[in-house]
Amino acid sequence: MYIFDFDYKHARPPMEMKDLLGGKGANLAEMASVLNLPVPPGFTITVEACREYLNRDTWPDGLLPELAEARARLESRMGKTIGDPSDPLLVSVRSGAKFSMPGMMDTVLNLGLNDESVKGVAIQTSDERFAYDSYRRFVSMYGRIVLGIDGELFDNPLENMKSGAGVTSDAALGADDLKALVESYKDVVLRETGTAFPQSPDDQLQGAVQAVFSSWNGPRAVAYREHEGIPHDLGTAVNVQAMVFGNRDDNSGTGVGFTRDPATGDKGAYGDFLINAQGEDVVAGIRNTMPLSALKDRMPDVYNELLDIFSRLEGHYRDMCDTEFTIEQGKLWMLQTRVGKRTGRAALKMAVDMVSEPEISLTQREAVGRIDAGHLEQVLHPQFSTGDYDVLANGLGASPGAAVGRVYFTADTAVEAHNNGEKVILVRNETSPEDVHGMLAAEGILTARGGLVSHAAVVARGWGKPAVVGAEAIKISSGNTGADSPGAKPSFSVDGTVVGEGEWLSIDGTSGAVVVGQVPLAAAEVPPELEQILTWADEIRAGKMGVRANADNGPDAANARRYGAEGIGLCRTEHMFLLEDRLPIVRRMILAGNEEEENSALEELRVAQRSDFVEILREMDGLPVVVRLLDPPLHEFLPRVEDLLVRRVKGELSQEEERLYQAAREWQEANPMLGTRGVRLGVIKPGLYSMQVKALMEAALLRIRDGGSPVVEVMIPLTISRNELHLARGWVLSAIDEVLSGATSSERERLDVKIGTMIETPRAALLAGEIANEAEFFSFGTNDLTQMTFGFSRDDVEGRMMSRYLELELIEHNPFETVDAEGVGELVRIAVERGRATKPGLSMGVCGEHGGDPASIAVFADAGVDYVSCSPFRVPVARLAAAHAVMRS
Amino acid sequence: MYIFDFDYKHARPPMEMKDLLGGKGANLAEMASVLNLPVPPGFTITVEACREYLNRDTWPDGLLPELAEARARLESRMGKTIGDPSDPLLVSVRSGAKFSMPGMMDTVLNLGLNDESVKGVAIQTSDERFAYDSYRRFVSMYGRIVLGIDGELFDNPLENMKSGAGVTSDAALGADDLKALVESYKDVVLRETGTAFPQSPDDQLQGAVQAVFSSWNGPRAVAYREHEGIPHDLGTAVNVQAMVFGNRDDNSGTGVGFTRDPATGDKGAYGDFLINAQGEDVVAGIRNTMPLSALKDRMPDVYNELLDIFSRLEGHYRDMCDTEFTIEQGKLWMLQTRVGKRTGRAALKMAVDMVSEPEISLTQREAVGRIDAGHLEQVLHPQFSTGDYDVLANGLGASPGAAVGRVYFTADTAVEAHNNGEKVILVRNETSPEDVHGMLAAEGILTARGGLVSHAAVVARGWGKPAVVGAEAIKISSGNTGADSPGAKPSFSVDGTVVGEGEWLSIDGTSGAVVVGQVPLAAAEVPPELEQILTWADEIRAGKMGVRANADNGPDAANARRYGAEGIGLCRTEHMFLLEDRLPIVRRMILAGNEEEENSALEELRVAQRSDFVEILREMDGLPVVVRLLDPPLHEFLPRVEDLLVRRVKGELSQEEERLYQAAREWQEANPMLGTRGVRLGVIKPGLYSMQVKALMEAALLRIRDGGSPVVEVMIPLTISRNELHLARGWVLSAIDEVLSGATSSERERLDVKIGTMIETPRAALLAGEIANEAEFFSFGTNDLTQMTFGFSRDDVEGRMMSRYLELELIEHNPFETVDAEGVGELVRIAVERGRATKPGLSMGVCGEHGGDPASIAVFADAGVDYVSCSPFRVPVARLAAAHAVMRS
Repeated sequence: MYIFDFDYKHARPPMEMKDLLGGKGANLAEMASVLNLPVPPGFTITVEACREYLNRDTWPDGLLPELAEARARLESRMGKTIGDPSDPLLVSVRSGAKFSMPGMMDTVLNLGLNDESVKGVAIQTSDERFAYDSYRRFVSMYGRIVLGIDGELFDNPLENMKSGAGVTSDAALGADDLKALVESYKDVVLRETGTAFPQSPDDQLQGAVQAVFSSWNGPRAVAYREHEGIPHDLGTAVNVQAMVFGNRDDNSGTGVGFTRDPATGDKGAYGDFLINAQGEDVVAGIRNTMPLSALKDRMPDVYNELLDIFSRLEGHYRDMCDTEFTIEQGKLWMLQTRVGKRTGRAALKMAVDMVSEPEISLTQREAVGRIDAGHLEQVLHPQFSTGDYDVLANGLGASPGAAVGRVYFTADTAVEAHNNGEKVILVRNETSPEDVHGMLAAEGILTARGGLVSHAAVVARGWGKPAVVGAEAIKISSGNTGADSPGAKPSFSVDGTVVGEGEWLSIDGTSGAVVVGQVPLAAAEVPPELEQILTWADEIRAGKMGVRANADNGPDAANARRYGAEGIGLCRTEHMFLLEDRLPIVRRMILAGNEEEENSALEELRVAQRSDFVEILREMDGLPVVVRLLDPPLHEFLPRVEDLLVRRVKGELSQEEERLYQAAREWQEANPMLGTRGVRLGVIKPGLYSMQVKALMEAALLRIRDGGSPVVEVMIPLTISRNELHLARGWVLSAIDEVLSGATSSERERLDVKIGTMIETPRAALLAGEIANEAEFFSFGTNDLTQMTFGFSRDDVEGRMMSRYLELELIEHNPFETVDAEGVGELVRIAVERGRATKPGLSMGVCGEHGGDPASIAVFADAGVDYVSCSPFRVPVARLAAAHAVMRS
Repeated sequence: MYIFDFDYKHARPPMEMKDLLGGKGANLAEMASVLNLPVPPGFTITVEACREYLNRDTWPDGLLPELAEARARLESRMGKTIGDPSDPLLVSVRSGAKFSMPGMMDTVLNLGLNDESVKGVAIQTSDERFAYDSYRRFVSMYGRIVLGIDGELFDNPLENMKSGAGVTSDAALGADDLKALVESYKDVVLRETGTAFPQSPDDQLQGAVQAVFSSWNGPRAVAYREHEGIPHDLGTAVNVQAMVFGNRDDNSGTGVGFTRDPATGDKGAYGDFLINAQGEDVVAGIRNTMPLSALKDRMPDVYNELLDIFSRLEGHYRDMCDTEFTIEQGKLWMLQTRVGKRTGRAALKMAVDMVSEPEISLTQREAVGRIDAGHLEQVLHPQFSTGDYDVLANGLGASPGAAVGRVYFTADTAVEAHNNGEKVILVRNETSPEDVHGMLAAEGILTARGGLVSHAAVVARGWGKPAVVGAEAIKISSGNTGADSPGAKPSFSVDGTVVGEGEWLSIDGTSGAVVVGQVPLAAAEVPPELEQILTWADEIRAGKMGVRANADNGPDAANARRYGAEGIGLCRTEHMFLLEDRLPIVRRMILAGNEEEENSALEELRVAQRSDFVEILREMDGLPVVVRLLDPPLHEFLPRVEDLLVRRVKGELSQEEERLYQAAREWQEANPMLGTRGVRLGVIKPGLYSMQVKALMEAALLRIRDGGSPVVEVMIPLTISRNELHLARGWVLSAIDEVLSGATSSERERLDVKIGTMIETPRAALLAGEIANEAEFFSFGTNDLTQMTFGFSRDDVEGRMMSRYLELELIEHNPFETVDAEGVGELVRIAVERGRATKPGLSMGVCGEHGGDPASIAVFADAGVDYVSCSPFRVPVARLAAAHAVMRS
């Protein structure tokens, strides 16, 4: 049996039979046979028939008789006959594979038109022009798709016709013109195929079905499947369906309807319709549509039937549905139904509402499953409220949300403008710690260089401020502040478009779009349902996948806690070193000529860090705080060699600066990423780590004496071997002992510090079994692990090559955005397995930027990671994604 | 049974019974019981007895009676009694564990001396002073070792005695002084232990045995075992042996003897002896020793007996032996026998000789097994011919061999001095391609910075020229050529020692030693046996582990072939780009403003590269040549930004230089190691790889037309994914097709090019199963794989941190010298396994610097690698090491 009518009673739900019926066929059968909706009748020729046809290169046995029977059933049901010169039945023929393959094959509409039946259409519609326009379209569509004639050959007669008639628009052609055009088209067919355009409906139908079958192996389809990884031996189904016309009369019409409001989530039908119109008129937006509610007055019966259908659809799909319908002479036909797209706000409201609606009674898990990260981003960050703008350049969406402001090119001018009440977009080639005050003053940040973990990106995400980074097309001319073109005002240009200081610019930190001018913004608006969904999500993931935040100071910690973080997974102590009042002390430590000078600088840093830690521990009271000891290479705390070099050549350096220059030179490295950083710094300057641990323990002790409950975990970065961690652990333990020697025994008991390590070199992952002997927890630094596993320096590769690599599909996605499940993911899996083989139950976290990415969270959950840590603003997304990961596994 | 006499007839060879007898006991038993050598009698108390004693903390049942019996047997055999006041037997008591544990416990000599027996010694030796000196030494040794008394307490009376006697040397004390000293020592014992010094030989013996047992758990021994990974529960044996005296009279003596010459390998006994002397006199070198041959005249019987023993020893050990012997009143005693150390030249000669000597009849495999890399290095490179020098500084031994010359600091001055007939050592902070002419002119190269794979190291190894790199202690003052101290002559200093231009310096590229002045050199001298050994090695490894060379030009290829390379495993095409006449063309390509300019530069490069390839393929005719497409980041072909920046600030740049500056800026990277290099360059500039492949294929075609048999393999560097390799493979195939379209079909058939990839990122290793689909061979780039797996930039880490890491034992060895078996080795194993799972038999090579390191070759052989590739001069070592690896597995 190769053919099933749409309302055939299958043993299984049709939506589960896409293997046989294809996606579209299954959807139509679901509506017709299960929901008993008024679907224009028709039938599906199965995927199996297609496979048979393709294998044998001829009609499968019995298919033609089945087709004839199906056609007869259809005609009898419709009370019309295909090709009837007075009131003909017209059908559409569409392909429909298991997986949607857009662009693989167009639809053949109006099949059944011929020289006779076109007259019947003219009579029935009382519109001869419409009839012949439909006919000439059918001939060309059939010619192109079924007969394989070059489409241009049909364009030429049309152009000739228009220029002959002295008009420029198709619409200006009259019925007679179109009649003549039909003849020209038929001539084209005869000339190109050597055969006349088929007048017999049977021939037309069989030709169309064969064409759909064959299109499966067309080059476009093959290429598409290659691209998408769809097997080549599946085949496609063919759907033949009676056509209905919403443009028959004023008792006809067409529309789209949602079972509730897809923008707000409010209950009640929502949609648009047009009287006496076809579907494309609604979509085209040429005529003003009416709201669905207007149908109540115009066609009350149809309206009630539609509401009834909507309610059945929601009961069936247990979700909001998006439908297309046509009314033909007072009769309602449902053309399409599917679960509808919605805004973030609507998604949240509907999911929560449907849990308490008895007709739907969604479970809490299902409700959580209905929300995705995109929904949350929409409600948490401002968005462009229109899609109507021209993109000037695209960068990497580094921190979600949209921002609009005037362009400034330096931190200082940005601050000045901000103080003058202007909204500012700070535009830089890249940012450094010296730009932080300007970044703070800006609405959004745009950089020409750098990747998703560049300074600008990390800082902006930490603040929840929109940022687009690595917009390579942007060329900044620094004006009189630089040497390139003295005297000029600073500006940037993209392919000739120049945007000067003070001009308006809009950026979308989600998509990475950069737009000249002011794109209207929709403000962030957190609906009350968000908290409910996140609470349910937390219940689902409880005990399985935790969410912590990366926070380096008290305000960030407070923010993280407010967003629901269950602790700090990464406190980067270097950020404390970079503060304006700390940097000179850090430099003094680096420049120290003897131990005494070094110790005195360390002492000052200890006091400063202690107060930072007190604040953080206060905000996170009772929750774990993972403090990573100093990680970046020392030269990051020194001026750039190049900058000083220029002034040095000019003899402008002070004695102090000359010392800084010499130090910067000494600490300069060929590949700082793989250089003297992390625990290696500790090996070279053990006093540094000792100082940090003392500051932390003193802070913890102060908190305890203040009635607090600090929970401290100390993390060693960049470990490569067990012995190295053993050594570092020794420093930490000594420093703890030193501080706690002044504590009471009850205080000591309350300060049970865990010592762990980052796993961020491939070697640490491979040797995790050994390293676990010295660690009480692991935290995966997936940024660095990605850099080393790929050999991708984030500073160099993301800007210069990533887009090209993605375009050419050399990699599946940006591995700094979503963790590389195959390479980096395997190292994580290996480390989890080997670490726990040594120490069952060893705690495993992820503190790289991937900790806030849903797809990455799923990979980590599969690997057995206990928690992820991300920037505070990302915590809600991580809570949701963690719940999804738990549900999936 | 806890005690075995040395000549006890064991059922198994004693040397296999070290578990029970300990190392020394087994050696003594082998000599006494198997070889029937005249060994001073004695017995071994087994390891088992020690374990029992330690477990139960008391004498094992039956041990004391056994000890008494063993003592009685010994006395009866020697015809003397311990403690006899007229002619006492003296014994030594020594520990002897299964594994040698130097410094764990000293020996107790002269046991049996007491107030009575000392007189017997005086009578027998007719030397009262000697007798009492022995006695006072015994008391203090016993006091210190057995009774645990602080050694200083014995030093004080000695000092008092000397100052009282008005002498400064022990030797100036007379017999009466020493007698008085014995009394003082006994007082110390009484005072410290509360008991008189034991006079009973039984007490002395039991005390010494217990002390040896207990010493197993002494802190020094425990620490030593911790360090060496020796289990703590083994225990030690105790050897009690009759003492013999070579200093009794002129019919006594002592010496060391080798069964053949350890320096030359020549047959015939070789050694030194002294009449009327103890062993320490021979070692101390105070008296001039006589050659062993002189014994023939002095004591012909003893001499003949010794020769007979030597011949039996060689027959038994099937190797040259090193012995210690003592003659006591005309009686020969063998004290020690072991397989002797030898020079490289001797090792080669002996190994080859012994294969054809019927008494020894070594197999060829055994002969190969007797040679190690150190032996080969000794004969292949000049060496310091003395150990008598002060090391000024230590760097990394980057290219083996020693060199002596005058110091020059720039390539130009080095060349000038060389042209004036001087021998030159080029001293630089680091070298770059611009220094190559100076390096070529120098005898040896010394750099203050950089690691084993720095430019200096790689180039020097390629030429087989001695080099020491990364000698961090060296501070170069560039004199009037730099800005630091204008007008001064260039020099370098190490902790205050200044070495100026033109002064003599010696360097040892094997050990890394830097020495001021001229250390005498022993020239490289390749003995005729080397070829024989390598031929046997080749037979052993045939079909299992191949050896290729890294060579980038014709002369290197010729060299490689001469040293026995079976092809080129790595031809680095970038080295061709760096030649003086090519660099401007490469820069033109980089600077190209449009495609035309770029293509024209590429065209010029193609012609140049083609001639390089023709030369290489000619030299390697019939053997495979792996050509790696361009690998390094483009900025390596540009001047350094900093250098141009200084001149730019001064307004000194020409227009051309300004363009170079801009390009250098554009291509500058934060971490070039992880940046735009390898196949990524190809993605950005596909014309580059296409050009290289065309040049190669044209060269191959020219060779074929010239009657040659080129075997070409094209290698893509730095692959990270299957798709990336697929893309690159496509470029290669197109270029091949393009060139071969002009070839005849028989030419085409003879040009079957393999396309493969380097595995040098951790990701490529992990995804080797996928990548193998696109590769016909893999070659492991273990340098980069090591850098990425550890996160160690070789340019930064080796100089700044490696020595500290090794010192602190944070890593076991320098992973750039010997491959890290655990981390990097695992990635290699994973890649081999997964690659072959996809393509069984996929060819696997290693082309990193590790390819020439014996320990690394063993790791690669275990992983299933098919061949290694190393610098031409290293090929002999690799051939040998590959044979060893095959023999071991």
